This record gives sequence, structure tokens and C-alpha cells, in this order.
Amino acid sequence: MTAQKKLNIALFGSGRIGRVHAANLAAHPGVNLAWVADPVVDSAREVAGRYGARAAGTTDEVFADPSLDAVLICSPTPTHVDLIRAAIGRGIAVLCEKPIDLDIERVRSCAADLAGNTSQLMMGFNRRFDPAFAALHRRVAAGEIGRLEQLTIISRDPAPAPAAYIAASGGIFRDMSIHDLDMARFFIPHIVEVTAHGANVFSDYVADAGDFDSAVLTLRGGDGELVSITNSRHSAYGYDQRLEAFGGQGMLRADNISPTTVRSFGTLAVEGADPYEPFFLERYAAAYRSELDRFIESVRTRTPCSPGFDDGMAALVLADAAAESAATGKTITVEGALQK
Amino acid sequence: MTAQKKLNIALFGSGRIGRVHAANLAAHPGVNLAWVADPVVDSAREVAGRYGARAAGTTDEVFADPSLDAVLICSPTPTHVDLIRAAIGRGIAVLCEKPIDLDIERVRSCAADLAGNTSQLMMGFNRRFDPAFAALHRRVAAGEIGRLEQLTIISRDPAPAPAAYIAASGGIFRDMSIHDLDMARFFIPHIVEVTAHGANVFSDYVADAGDFDSAVLTLRGGDGELVSITNSRHSAYGYDQRLEAFGGQGMLRADNISPTTVRSFGTLAVEGADPYEPFFLERYAAAYRSELDRFIESVRTRTPCSPGFDDGMAALVLADAAAESAATGKTITVEGALQK
Amino acid sequence: MTAQKKLNIALFGSGRIGRVHAANLAAHPGVNLAWVADPVVDSAREVAGRYGARAAGTTDEVFADPSLDAVLICSPTPTHVDLIRAAIGRGIAVLCEKPIDLDIERVRSCAADLAGNTSQLMMGFNRRFDPAFAALHRRVAAGEIGRLEQLTIISRDPAPAPAAYIAASGGIFRDMSIHDLDMARFFIPHIVEVTAHGANVFSDYVADAGDFDSAVLTLRGGDGELVSITNSRHSAYGYDQRLEAFGGQGMLRADNISPTTVRSFGTLAVEGADPYEPFFLERYAAAYRSELDRFIESVRTRTPCSPGFDDGMAALVLADAAAESAATGKTITVEGALQK
Amino acid sequence: MTAQKKLNIALFGSGRIGRVHAANLAAHPGVNLAWVADPVVDSAREVAGRYGARAAGTTDEVFADPSLDAVLICSPTPTHVDLIRAAIGRGIAVLCEKPIDLDIERVRSCAADLAGNTSQLMMGFNRRFDPAFAALHRRVAAGEIGRLEQLTIISRDPAPAPAAYIAASGGIFRDMSIHDLDMARFFIPHIVEVTAHGANVFSDYVADAGDFDSAVLTLRGGDGELVSITNSRHSAYGYDQRLEAFGGQGMLRADNISPTTVRSFGTLAVEGADPYEPFFLERYAAAYRSELDRFIESVRTRTPCSPGFDDGMAALVLADAAAESAATGKTITVEGALQK
Repeated sequence: MTAQKKLNIALFGSGRIGRVHAANLAAHPGVNLAWVADPVVDSAREVAGRYGARAAGTTDEVFADPSLDAVLICSPTPTHVDLIRAAIGRGIAVLCEKPIDLDIERVRSCAADLAGNTSQLMMGFNRRFDPAFAALHRRVAAGEIGRLEQLTIISRDPAPAPAAYIAASGGIFRDMSIHDLDMARFFIPHIVEVTAHGANVFSDYVADAGDFDSAVLTLRGGDGELVSITNSRHSAYGYDQRLEAFGGQGMLRADNISPTTVRSFGTLAVEGADPYEPFFLERYAAAYRSELDRFIESVRTRTPCSPGFDDGMAALVLADAAAESAATGKTITVEGALQK
Repeated sequence: MTAQKKLNIALFGSGRIGRVHAANLAAHPGVNLAWVADPVVDSAREVAGRYGARAAGTTDEVFADPSLDAVLICSPTPTHVDLIRAAIGRGIAVLCEKPIDLDIERVRSCAADLAGNTSQLMMGFNRRFDPAFAALHRRVAAGEIGRLEQLTIISRDPAPAPAAYIAASGGIFRDMSIHDLDMARFFIPHIVEVTAHGANVFSDYVADAGDFDSAVLTLRGGDGELVSITNSRHSAYGYDQRLEAFGGQGMLRADNISPTTVRSFGTLAVEGADPYEPFFLERYAAAYRSELDRFIESVRTRTPCSPGFDDGMAALVLADAAAESAATGKTITVEGALQK
Repeated sequence: MTAQKKLNIALFGSGRIGRVHAANLAAHPGVNLAWVADPVVDSAREVAGRYGARAAGTTDEVFADPSLDAVLICSPTPTHVDLIRAAIGRGIAVLCEKPIDLDIERVRSCAADLAGNTSQLMMGFNRRFDPAFAALHRRVAAGEIGRLEQLTIISRDPAPAPAAYIAASGGIFRDMSIHDLDMARFFIPHIVEVTAHGANVFSDYVADAGDFDSAVLTLRGGDGELVSITNSRHSAYGYDQRLEAFGGQGMLRADNISPTTVRSFGTLAVEGADPYEPFFLERYAAAYRSELDRFIESVRTRTPCSPGFDDGMAALVLADAAAESAATGKTITVEGALQK
Repeated sequence: MTAQKKLNIALFGSGRIGRVHAANLAAHPGVNLAWVADPVVDSAREVAGRYGARAAGTTDEVFADPSLDAVLICSPTPTHVDLIRAAIGRGIAVLCEKPIDLDIERVRSCAADLAGNTSQLMMGFNRRFDPAFAALHRRVAAGEIGRLEQLTIISRDPAPAPAAYIAASGGIFRDMSIHDLDMARFFIPHIVEVTAHGANVFSDYVADAGDFDSAVLTLRGGDGELVSITNSRHSAYGYDQRLEAFGGQGMLRADNISPTTVRSFGTLAVEGADPYEPFFLERYAAAYRSELDRFIESVRTRTPCSPGFDDGMAALVLADAAAESAATGKTITVEGALQK
């Protein structure tokens, strides 16, 4: 490792996911965590203090710093497009948490403003960087299972978010399935059809909010691939994140992760493993680190970031199609939509 | 075990599945395999000779035997309804391989003729008797996972049947998915909606026959349960038969079966198991024996057989709905259809 | 399968293991179960009646039957050598449950009397016929893991036999470890050294009988192979029967068997399997059938039985060496002993 | 987390294991890596430069720094006792890689000099800090499996060290088994007996050095516990590190670790996992970090380090006993030796 100039990076948002990124930024040998900005200044100060960064209550203060190389946008969704515009407009690289926005028209408008200048804009679809999913993807790409024919994704949260979160979430498809829709696109970029079914089977407050607590989605790829996604907003046995890629010559599967390999053998059951990692902060800890490594590398080398703005937009198009399909009982053709 | 009069049973059809039943009948302590009938008389003779039964070229010869207690119908599908009518009309119990018929109108006509006299008629949905699926079903029924919310079924044949078989099969939904549709009904008898997607990804001759080689189905149950079924006509790693039941308090999963527990550890991979059982004759060997046990017990005690004629009819209704959905791109409501 | 004359076989002993063999003999297409002999005549009658065989209170009655082809000796251990002598002397094939006898001098005397006429005498080391262990053995023999270097055997009974059984058992090494010693010889016939350690950690009555409830044995093979055997007379999670063969190019492992593949996922543990098969009758059901198939085949074709009398004697020599080692704290050289 | 004074720590030795510790020290929020010392000054400089520490060619330079709080001793084994004496004599805390020394007399002499002043001296038995082994240990201590009766340890290196290393290693028992002997003592501190068998089955140069390439050890604990350890200097499928604790009420097992959960399904094998972590640097990466956390915590709070000097001495006593047992074919009683 030769000494390299550290990148000056600002973090926007010091909530749950912001703090994950803060710790990873602080530990990264190529990064100087320069700023932590949050309108809740005490929170910004707490996180900034921990890692020797400066705290800010507004992003304007941060953008005024001419030494800034990149920003990580972990603030609430409605702020994303403006912050993206502001950063990209100043030539500052961006790693933005998903989604770009919940309104596809705002996203398209942002796309128009960016005018293709999105090489240094990366979308935080963290699961693409999970070591298991990434390894599985590499092996599929290398032809290990032949032509990819079917993809099975099972994704269940441990418990539903609070009512206030649900109300602002954009619904299960835009908030939760969107990760699985991006995972589908990771393997099959060209999706042509979406069919979705929602159900309400356990949560009154989710139903009261007009949202579903369970869903099953089917996608069709341009080469006839079929994708099955199963979602639930709860899971008694912990965060459930699995993927199977089935091809003409075999199958590859990524299973859930227990904290250790310890298994117990007793009178009622044998070979029982410890409960899975509780939620995304633990399950995808390695993914967040790897995602950051990739972003830093892209910024340093000025090579295009991936997944990028178009991937963020495409995932939202699919989520919108899913919502429409669930509402109408019809399969939605998305090919044209993705081309726009 | 007290000595009991053995039931005199005839076997109609001495093909692949007929021979499985012949061996099980011959080994069953409560059964006298009296007849094996097949228009290919040499085949009937070969099987009959092996187990000390009489051979017949026609079913009329067999029905003329006044000592007959039950028949197993393993002859080609188009013969099923007439043989059912003939046996039930004579007060002879029936275990009939699925499906009743490929034409729902013929099935309804048969139902009308039987006029509810179906207590001693069992449909050969063998998978319900698989030890793993049966145990899983008992545990779900006992409330182990709370309310059942989602069911995931993955079912892939090792290799597609020959073109001639495909042509007469009624299509992937009526021929292959029908087993999974019955499995869905085993757990969730009240299915209200079917959505299906077919694809052609590997077999030209299946496509040429106007059939799909791959399919994904989504069912909705009357209480909001969502069922996902994934089918393929081929599988490089052997017969793939899996099921997951997800409920509010946990999940139960039945995985594939390797011939032994031996696992290998080498330089390229570790913990590798032997390839799965090649096809249904091996994978469901125990299921066929258990199915026969249950049939014999129902006949002996004159208690209603299960799964019965209505289950056979319901599975076909769902398969027809799947075919219609795949053709039209619409979700098909089946509630009314199942009530008829 | 062409029709063949069925072998007339008598069963000596109608206890627990005798009944396993009775059922397998009755179901075997090449066997006529002619006699069941037991001094407890009611037991003999019960078993004989179930399968249409004749019952006898003495073995003399049975030996008087000139049509007898073979006997299965499942009577108490002290009767084995006399019954072997009687049968072999009459040219009748023998499948004898282990051990030949608990006294190596009686075994040597029997060997002298037999004068090498042991081709049609098979010892009932059932585990060699377990599908998993047999498959693993075939793969080791085929060179899959290179030269065999280490063998790890773990073998635990679910619960200790009653005090009366323990008192007459010959001790843990001759009664329980003997199966593992034969398994070691199955893979490494030439054992040159035995070291054994016994312990008393849970059962007062086993200790009171002067026996151990736990043991660890180490064997050395003629080519430097090291074998580790771990035994316990109890196991909270069921019958524990495992084997690992480690070689220069890899490892093969055979694990325990759950009744089904069902796994449960709950709040306290995930991937838990059903408790293992409770004891040898269930765990080795397939092994007993396969053992009988092999015996019948050897008798029918007049080819030497395996494992044979020498294997039974060798296992006892190793068990005696283990007992001596545990008593003296010394490694016992057995090479000479096995050559005698 | 409140701000705390960082501990000034020096690293002695910048070889393979030294570099692991250097990276962990540099990333630890409570540590200031002040010095890296190595007689190979270029190596010291390389590592020191990477993390902003000072480089030294001698330990004297380092000990002259009055601000030093602790040292990590990763230099060659023969230097350990003198460095321990020097540091402890100056009131500087020590984390020392195992073993203390290969000569028990030097260790005893060092113990006499230290005169019990070993509270701030920790031995680097890293495996005690492996998340899986540590969790398993906690669960055994909490009584989950009842009284501990048997411990099975399997530990195989991927490939033998070079001849030069083997020659200076003290032999397989002092160099390799010593980790397993400490693991045994982690669960059963009071070991009373050691029996060991060595073998040469694959490596000529190991045999030429008068060492074994394979070994099996049996230990007896003070309460009758039996421990089985299986070692090999090679393993085709990667670093093999497993442990089973068997008790009166159940069993707990820690298995090997694959880099990801990905499993492959093909025509020759199914459920195959990726090869295990190649060697200790990868397998025990988390253990090294956790070990350091524990050391820092003990130094900061002035609470006794564990494992300590006595544990280091006890492991060597057991290793010496194993070597003697393997040479003499006798079980060695060690109770007295451990009390000294």
C-alpha cells in the first residue's frame, strides 16, 4: 500500500444508517471524514466528535468547503434529489442511500437536470456488495450454472417499522421490495414484466395505512427468465435474506447467516443454529464496508460508479409497476418504462 | 397385529407407476394382489407372474370377479373416468392416479354420475404422504408456526418428458404443476386466486408443442395466504422437491433428500452431498407405501378416503386457471369455480 | 428376476433383534422362513405365526429338518458357538449376531473345531451394511480421499442398558465398542495397537458393576493410520453414530440420520432438525435388510461370506486389548494376537 | 463511549503474526501504536510507517520510552522469557504469543523470577477468543448441556510448515497440539492424564526431523472427563478447526467456517460449500481482534489477564507429557506437574 491523498468526505445524516457509514468512513485508510451534517445538530456533533470530524447543522456549510471530494447522503428520502443536484453540480462525488425519491417524476426531473453527468454518483444498494450475493453473482456471470433461468429471492424483515415510518415509506414495494427488485436487476438487468400480489395477514396498522404486510412478486426477464420474490414485514426467526439462482447446469444458493457456527443437539431438536443476524445493520455490515471500498475506489480512479443513478431509477420503475399490478390484478409491462 | 381378511385388489396398468404399486401391494400384509390388467397382455403377465396374481387383457374380466374389494387405476389418463364409474358403480373402492381427466367437463360429468358416492375413492396425490411433507403438515396444523401466511414450493423435474408425452400431457400446469397445486391445497384448501407465468428457456420441442418448460405460479388463499410455486422441466442436480411454510411464529422447511448422509471435503468444495434422488419413483418411494397404507385402512374401516374426488377436481380447476392466467396475463379468480 | 428356489431358513431367537430379522426374512423374495425357535415357546409361536413359519422350543427340532439351508442365530451370546458348530457341521449356512462369544478361548476353540470351514458363516456386524458407511467405504476404497490416514468414530447409545444386561455384557469394550472396532477393521483390517481409556461420569449402577459408562479408544493401523473412537452409554439427543475418514486428498463424513428433512426456524434456534433415530433398530433398519440380502446372495452362490468368523474373532481380540489397556494404562500391541 | 487516554503500545516482531496485531492495534480506538521493533529494521520500518508508529531495531530503545503502557511480544519463541521479564519488571503489561518457551525449565525459572507478578501478562491463546468457541464455552459454563463429559477436538493445518520451521518447532505436540491442549484446559482446567500417539503418514521431511506429521491425544480431566484430540499437519480441504462438547443433557458443536454461505448444486454433488478459510490468519481474524480487546480492557482496568502465565505453563506441561507418552507408549500422569 503506497501512501495516497485521503479523500475528504462529508456525511449528510447522522441517524441509524448514517452512523454505520460514519464508523466505516472513520476506519477507512483512504478517507478523511471531514464533516457530519444533520439538522439535529446535537446528533451531528455527537457523531462528528467521535471521529474528529466537524459538525454542521446545514449542508450549505459543508458545500462551502472547497476541499470536499465526496458526500454520503443518508438524510431522509425527500432531501435526496436536491442534495444530489447540489453535489454533482459542484463536481463532488455522491454515494446516496436508496431510494433516489419516492416520486418517479421527481427522479426523471433530476435525471434531466443531471444530463448524464452521473458517473460519480453511486446508489447505496448495499446488498449487491454482500460477500455471499456478490460471490454468487460472480459465479453466475462466470457461467457456472449455465444460462440463468430462474431466480428465487426471499426477503423478510424481522418486524414491521412503526406506523409513522410506514405512512411515509411509499408502501412495501417502494420501501422494502425495492431492494429485491434491484437484486433481480443485478442478475437480470433487462426486466420486461412485473406482477405483484400484496396481502394483509398480521398487522392492523399496516393495513390501516393502506399498505400490505406481505407480498409476492413475479418478474420476467428479456430472455424468459422468471424471478420470484417473497416478502414479509415480519419474521419470527430474524432477518431472512436468501437468494437462489437456477440455471441450465446447476444452482447456486446463498443462505442466511448465524453469528457463529455453533449448533446445539438436545432432546427436542438437533443441529439447531443460533438465530440469524437480527437486521440489516448486522446482516449487511460487511456489505456496507465493501460498498464504501468500491465507492472510494471509483472516486479515486474517476471510473463510473455502479450501481448508479439509472439503477436507482429502474428499481423505482419496477416498484411502481409492482404497486400498480397489486392494485389492478394485472401484469405490468415495463420494458418501455425502463428505456425512457 | 391380529389376522384380518386380506383385501382382494386389482391393478389396472402395468407401466412405470403401476409396477411401483404392484411391488407395494405384494408386500402389504393386508392385501392379496388378485389381478393385473393391461391391454399389453405380456406386460400384465410379467407383473402378475412376479407376484402370483392373475393377468388380464381387459378390465371387464377383472370386474367379473365378485371377490374384488378395490382397484388401483394406473392406466392412461383418458381411461380414468370410465374406470372410476365402473368400479364405484359396483361398490368397489378405487385408488386412482392423478389426474381424474385433463378435461374439466368430463370430470364434472363424472362427478354428476357419482352423485357424491365418492367416500371410497382416493386420488393418488402421493406427495401428501411423503414423510417430510406429511410431518410438516401435521406441525403446521398443530400450530407450531402460528397462522400460516406464506407457502413456497419449488418443484423441478430432472429432465423433460419426451415430445410424445408432452403433446398428450395437457401442458405443464395440468401435468406437472398440478402436484404443487394439490400440495398448496393440502395446506390451504381454500384457494381464491391463481396467477401463472410460463416461459420457454431451454427446450425447443416443448416450445414447439405450445407448452412451457418453466413456470412460476402465485396463489392467494381465502385468509390472505400467498403461495409461490416455481417449476422447471429440468434440473441439473436431480429431482428438486422442496416446501417452506412460513407463519407468524416461525417457519418449517422440507428439503431434498440425498441417498445417504455422506458428505465430501476436497480442495474445490466442502460438505458436498450426494446428488438428490433422481426422480419421483425414488424420491417418493416411502410416500407411495404410505399412501397405500392409508387407502387400505380407509377401505378396511369404510371411512372416507382423502385426498378424494373433490381434491382431484379442485387441482384441475386450479391448473386450468393457471393455464388461462398464463395465456391472458391476468389473475384468475377461482373461488366460484371451486364451489361448483 | 427369474424364479429361483427359495432358501429354507430358520431363526434362532425371537427377541428384539430376532424380530427384526424375522420381518426381513418374511419380506425377502428369496427366502422361506421355515422355523422360529426359542426356548420361550410362546414367543417363538407368536413370531412364527405372524409369518406362517413353524415354531420350535429347541434347536434340535429345527436341525432335524433336512431341507434347512441356513440359520440366523439371534439367541443369547453363550449359545452362539455351539449353534455355529452344530450348523456348520451339518453344512448349514449361518448368519450369527455378534459377538461369537465373550471368551476368546472359547472362540479359538470353536475356530479349531471349524478347521477353516467358515466360508458360509457370516457375522452380523450390521453397520458395515449401513448405506452411508458402505458408500463411504466404497469411496475410500476407490481412492477418492487418497491414502487413508485418520479415522474418527463417534458412537453413543441413547441410554445405558439395564443393570442385568450390563452385568452379563462383558463390559463396554466387548459389548459396545466392539461394533466400532469392527468398523475400524472394515476400513483398516490390519490393526497393530490398541489404547483405551474408560471413565464413569453419569451412571452409578454401571460403575457398581465394575464397568465404564464412557470410553475413548485409539488404534494404530499397520500403515500408521490412527483411529479415534469415542463412546458413551448415553446421549440426550438420540443414538449418535458418526464416522469420518480423513485421507491425503480429502475427507468423507457420514452423519446421523433424522427421520425426515424437516427443519424448524423459531425465535430461539434456526435450522433445527428432528431428533435422530432413537436406537439401532431404527437407525440400522436398512443395514439389517442389506446384510440379509448379502448373506442370501453368498449362500445362494456359495461364495464366501463377509464379514466372517475371523472378523468376529479379531473384533473380540481388539476389545480384549482395549479392556486390558484401560485396566493397565498401557498401549497393547495386538499384531501377534490377530495373526493367531 | 467516553474519551479515554489511549494506551501506548509497542509491538515486538513484525512478521506474519506481528502484522496481524499491528493492523488490529492501529484500528483499535483505545490504542496508540507507538513502536514497532524488529532486528530486521526494514521490516520494522515498513510496518511502523504504515501506521504512523516509530521503528526500532532493538527492544532497549523501546523500553527506554517512559510512556509505554504495554507490549505485544510476537518475536521468535526463544526471546519470549527475557522480554517478559524486562517488561513485567518495568511494570509494563504484556500480551505474549504462545508458547512462553519450548523448555519447561526456562519457563519455571521465569515463573520464579516473576514471583506471582503476572496479573498484567496475557498469553496469546487466540482460539479462546474465537466467537464460536467462546460462545460454546459460555453455553457449557451456563449449564446448557449439563455436566461436561467428553470433548472432541479436531485440528488440522492446511500444510506442514517448511523443514527449517519444523526443526525449531519443538515438535508437533509443543508447536501444534499445544493450542488444542489449551482449548481442552479452557473447558476442563484440571487435566490429570495425557496419552498421545504420533504417526508419520505423508511427509518424509517431518519424519526425517524426528517429528510426527499426525497425532491423536487423549486427556482425562479430574472429574472423569475424556478429551480426544486429532491432529494432522495437512488437510486437503483447508484449515480444519472443530470442537464438540458433549454433556449429560446435550451436545454443542462448532464447525469450520466457509467465507460465504454460498452452496452449489450440480450433477456430481449438491449443497457444496466453498473451501474453508485457508489458515489461522483468516480463520481466527475475529479472534485476534477480540483477544486484543480483552487485553486492552484488562490493562485499562488493571484486572487480571486471562489466559495468563500459568495457562501458558500448563499447556507446555501437557505438551511435554504428550511427547513423553508418544515416545514411551504410556499414559502420563500430570496432576502433580500442573500443581507445581
